[in-house]
Amino acid sequence: MVSVAIMGYGVVGSGVAEIIVTHRESLAKRAKEEIDIKYILDIRDFPGNPLEEKFIKDFNIILNDDDVRVVVEVMGGLHPAYDFVKQCLERGKSVVTSNKELVAAKGAELLRIAQDKNVNFLFEASVGGGIPIIRPMSQCLAANDVVEVAGILNGTTNFILTKMIRDQMSFEDALKLAQSLGYAEKDPTADVEGLDAVRKICILASLAYGKHVYPDNIHTEGITKITLADVSYAAAWGGVIKLIGSVKKLGDGRIDIFVAPMVLPNGSQLAGVDDVFNGIMVRGDSTGDVVFYGKGAGKMPTASAVVADVIDCIKHFKARKYLFWADGEDGYVLPYEESVCSMYVRASYSGGADIKAEAEKAFGGVKMIARASSGENEAAFVTPEMTVKEFDERAKSLEKAGVKIESRIRMGDL
Amino acid sequence: MVSVAIMGYGVVGSGVAEIIVTHRESLAKRAKEEIDIKYILDIRDFPGNPLEEKFIKDFNIILNDDDVRVVVEVMGGLHPAYDFVKQCLERGKSVVTSNKELVAAKGAELLRIAQDKNVNFLFEASVGGGIPIIRPMSQCLAANDVVEVAGILNGTTNFILTKMIRDQMSFEDALKLAQSLGYAEKDPTADVEGLDAVRKICILASLAYGKHVYPDNIHTEGITKITLADVSYAAAWGGVIKLIGSVKKLGDGRIDIFVAPMVLPNGSQLAGVDDVFNGIMVRGDSTGDVVFYGKGAGKMPTASAVVADVIDCIKHFKARKYLFWADGEDGYVLPYEESVCSMYVRASYSGGADIKAEAEKAFGGVKMIARASSGENEAAFVTPEMTVKEFDERAKSLEKAGVKIESRIRMGDL
Repeated sequence: MVSVAIMGYGVVGSGVAEIIVTHRESLAKRAKEEIDIKYILDIRDFPGNPLEEKFIKDFNIILNDDDVRVVVEVMGGLHPAYDFVKQCLERGKSVVTSNKELVAAKGAELLRIAQDKNVNFLFEASVGGGIPIIRPMSQCLAANDVVEVAGILNGTTNFILTKMIRDQMSFEDALKLAQSLGYAEKDPTADVEGLDAVRKICILASLAYGKHVYPDNIHTEGITKITLADVSYAAAWGGVIKLIGSVKKLGDGRIDIFVAPMVLPNGSQLAGVDDVFNGIMVRGDSTGDVVFYGKGAGKMPTASAVVADVIDCIKHFKARKYLFWADGEDGYVLPYEESVCSMYVRASYSGGADIKAEAEKAFGGVKMIARASSGENEAAFVTPEMTVKEFDERAKSLEKAGVKIESRIRMGDL
Repeated sequence: MVSVAIMGYGVVGSGVAEIIVTHRESLAKRAKEEIDIKYILDIRDFPGNPLEEKFIKDFNIILNDDDVRVVVEVMGGLHPAYDFVKQCLERGKSVVTSNKELVAAKGAELLRIAQDKNVNFLFEASVGGGIPIIRPMSQCLAANDVVEVAGILNGTTNFILTKMIRDQMSFEDALKLAQSLGYAEKDPTADVEGLDAVRKICILASLAYGKHVYPDNIHTEGITKITLADVSYAAAWGGVIKLIGSVKKLGDGRIDIFVAPMVLPNGSQLAGVDDVFNGIMVRGDSTGDVVFYGKGAGKMPTASAVVADVIDCIKHFKARKYLFWADGEDGYVLPYEESVCSMYVRASYSGGADIKAEAEKAFGGVKMIARASSGENEAAFVTPEMTVKEFDERAKSLEKAGVKIESRIRMGDL
């Protein structure tokens, strides 16, 4: 029998406990050991809970009990999760977490401690909820050089965009709906500003290319500025707007990484990923494009990914999983202004101006997009490829000519 | 350094050799050991091949060389592949194969030998080519009870159906095109009659539910009888026809498993999997639906999956992977005639007959489907759910009433 401790009895933590209790027999068969929840750490009381006698409030009980070999951290947030996880690893306990903030901020350090102590630090649930992605990427694609990873990594924003696209709901209304359905939190900033997505793409980038990428340095654009006018121009062009986290290896060894809304052609493998679903595309040099698709969040999907990691820890007490990346490096991430893309632009101008001529003067051969219910003195076009910096400069020259840029969105080639 | 032998230098075998040679450094990093191809077994000569000195014709050289710890079997076919693999495992060598025929026919036996000898028998490449599915199913979904697995498992037939759906190409023309593009073989039987797909769904079923399922016993329908009329009725209904391999666990412990064309609603996660792509949906009780999508075949995708397994063998010389299933059992598979579904039916009848009334008399409340360019005295409808046996009986009564059933296709609820 293996004793585990669960730190945090929130949505995911209670799901983990539920799976371990309800799937006792099948888990024992798969892990070749029975799994026993010895402690649940939470500052709150849960009177009447069937696991009531397991609850504790003092972390040191877990830390000092050598019987506990696997610790599940599902508290969320950086502190005290980081301190607890670090101490557990240093004591030779394997740790499983669903905490993307922790992995994105401290992954390299915690993986190094795990390696030194010959224990496992696993975090399948931190990206894509119940969709297996960390393990397939690290193992199954081991024989590939990863060319690119791109994905719809946040279900809340994908739900909002889907409502805007399908039902012509405004961003505000779609956000309210998402909140009323429990998909978005009262303070939706982490989702709608892309902070959740950027943590996830940083974890995937760290894993794919072996060096820690810190979210703080990464260009992160959310979806709050997307309007129904943009959605309808994207449709007229033959595409949809999705919030994408993307990382690509460049020829010089640096990586081009960002989170931003993108206009994807309808034929794209990610264009059809709708509602709260996540989709992650991994492009390997041998295997081509592989896409993983499923519910990226939710109590039971996330909890089941955590429990799968627990089983993996138990099966690998002797053979450590080779999940590892090194510290980050200065100059490893391409500055966003050097990133190359073509841009969708929506602009307004004074009556009488020849907007196409002005746009071409500024950007070169643009492609105009027409939509049925276009506003007056409104135009949209797609620029040729250039660096973001060059785009910004040329955009300024267009604005000097009296044209106001209402929105700009990267064009995607996924 | 770890010595490996490759048995079979065909499409996949030469791809495996290519990856091992060209990715030498990154593979060594991931496996923590350098990988050396010591032998390549093939009855043919390859003069001028850069690996010329590795080629041998005598299997016993591999078998008797204790230096060879991992053997790659990519010969295909049941004999002599089975005999060679069995002997290698018995000698304590780990074996990696892409041979679905072998795994579907002899998986339980070979996995048992591997277990007895404490070595690995891995076959990620046998299903879905470069799409990771075997490993995610056995590991990441370990904390789930698998409710259902269903997939588009054969790229050739999916290409043909896509051409019929998108370009109104006839089956015969689409098959010819597939052959000219190298997607289909001269003798396309294994693909178009569903024999390839049934091996794959049997492997997935064996893995998901722990008992070997032999392809010989499984209802297998191909796509040769699908016509453009069916494709257009499916479109009018709001769906597409796809060749699906499916397995579901029943309440009584049996499994409902088959390969058959199915009409899927356009919103289905598998409806958008087109061309030579494969898509596999795994429905877990906790995780919900997870879909894996990518190129299911091809030299490099398949070879990269084989090489990933080789790396896994090397990393797990001491800790065997817990990939296992037991022998099959009589009565474990639901007889197909007891399988429950609703059916799409296309029928022709003599002028003047009230086809809707006749269909309702035979099947109960049917839903008629109208299409724009319907033939004369032609009708299509969808029946309520019933067993296949009941459908067959009722279909006979309809035919007695002078209605000819031109085609029938299962309706899918994926």
